[in-house]
Amino acid sequence: MQSGERAGEGTVASARTVQGEVERALRKICLQPVRIAGASRTDAGVHARGQTASLTLPDDVQIPTSYLCMALNSNMLKDVSATKAEDVDADFHAQRDAVGKIYVYSFFSRRERSSMLRRDHWHMRFPVDPAAMQKAAQHLIGTHDFTSFATQLKLIQSKRIEEGKNELTTIRTIKHIELSEDPRIPGRFMIEVEGSGFLYQMVRTIVGSLVDVGRGYRSPDWMAEALAAKDRRKAGPTAPALGLCLQKVIY
Amino acid sequence: MQSGERAGEGTVASARTVQGEVERALRKICLQPVRIAGASRTDAGVHARGQTASLTLPDDVQIPTSYLCMALNSNMLKDVSATKAEDVDADFHAQRDAVGKIYVYSFFSRRERSSMLRRDHWHMRFPVDPAAMQKAAQHLIGTHDFTSFATQLKLIQSKRIEEGKNELTTIRTIKHIELSEDPRIPGRFMIEVEGSGFLYQMVRTIVGSLVDVGRGYRSPDWMAEALAAKDRRKAGPTAPALGLCLQKVIY
Repeated sequence: MQSGERAGEGTVASARTVQGEVERALRKICLQPVRIAGASRTDAGVHARGQTASLTLPDDVQIPTSYLCMALNSNMLKDVSATKAEDVDADFHAQRDAVGKIYVYSFFSRRERSSMLRRDHWHMRFPVDPAAMQKAAQHLIGTHDFTSFATQLKLIQSKRIEEGKNELTTIRTIKHIELSEDPRIPGRFMIEVEGSGFLYQMVRTIVGSLVDVGRGYRSPDWMAEALAAKDRRKAGPTAPALGLCLQKVIY
Repeated sequence: MQSGERAGEGTVASARTVQGEVERALRKICLQPVRIAGASRTDAGVHARGQTASLTLPDDVQIPTSYLCMALNSNMLKDVSATKAEDVDADFHAQRDAVGKIYVYSFFSRRERSSMLRRDHWHMRFPVDPAAMQKAAQHLIGTHDFTSFATQLKLIQSKRIEEGKNELTTIRTIKHIELSEDPRIPGRFMIEVEGSGFLYQMVRTIVGSLVDVGRGYRSPDWMAEALAAKDRRKAGPTAPALGLCLQKVIY
């Protein structure tokens, strides 16, 4: 049987990985090793609400696709869960076939720490100007070379072979970036970014740069300069991993 | 110095209590025991984003009110935090002077469990009809005898002495109840309830009853009957504690 497991969520703990957790559960279910191909390698500490992965179940495994999530969830620790499974074409690949991704970065701005937001929000003790951040973010929309927002160390690894052309590229398309404040919790913000794909630590560097604008270190228009420079040193700092969440992979 | 600490947030863990945690921190800061009066006694497992408490600092303690939260936060474990402190009249009392409270109950409806919502959402594996729930909720708005929605065991303890009249009452006013679905996460719902005050387990029983309507066990108009009966046995089950959060205390 061909089966594709798509959509899941989880948090990468220190030594464990979500992929490892899912593959361990699959091994228990199928009584043999089964590899999965995840859509996105999230860094340690980054959450994923909408991670997806593709896999091929061995021919001798008779589990209906509609039971696969239940079977996985019964065999994984509580901090990883499978939310949806569906059949796909045999040549479907969760990473290769993705045409876009949506990330959400959450942070809160106030002097006092928060017990309730501590696990998945960046806490900044300074105030930010959301209008300036929103204005700065608009400079990133469109198709650009995002070299300035990619961590150099692993840049080569995260370059993507453009379809048709056999070359690595740092060009990506950002469809929208939106900053919104939680109406129930003043000072709690979310930045939603949708793009064709992202370079290594690109979302976190965009957020760190926007926050530099929000706190008044930079003007909103500086964002355009940082982008045009194609130099990581011209952009802002990389925001902490814990605030980032892979919200959705688009096919 | 008179000082009132108002607004805090935290989760009650098994043996520890938020009040105990705050008082232990105050003892360290003041080098003597200081008692606080909380606005609301939340059950074990219930979260509180907007809990408030009043206290009187000893005369010989020279800590400015603006530093009190930082001092508390430095002396409490990560799952409890103080968010705001302000001076109030010496006769202010966090519970007695409260004129209203807002609770938010969070749940999600889908077959698969969720690693990300597991700590503070009720998970129901059946689908619900939000329109029916919203319709049922409207029957509760206004001033009513909410005996049907209060756990009998402790009812006498949670009765409140009405101002002026020296008697216990089960009459409360609900200002609004609103059910909303998270636009980012289909199947994730929040019920926000604002009232003058609440009987023991009243919000959880309202939610349990609304969910009975949402899953089709009851019609929306049954809610009016359950309310009129003034009998706990006529209402629905008590929803689990973990989905409940005290959002705000109104003065």
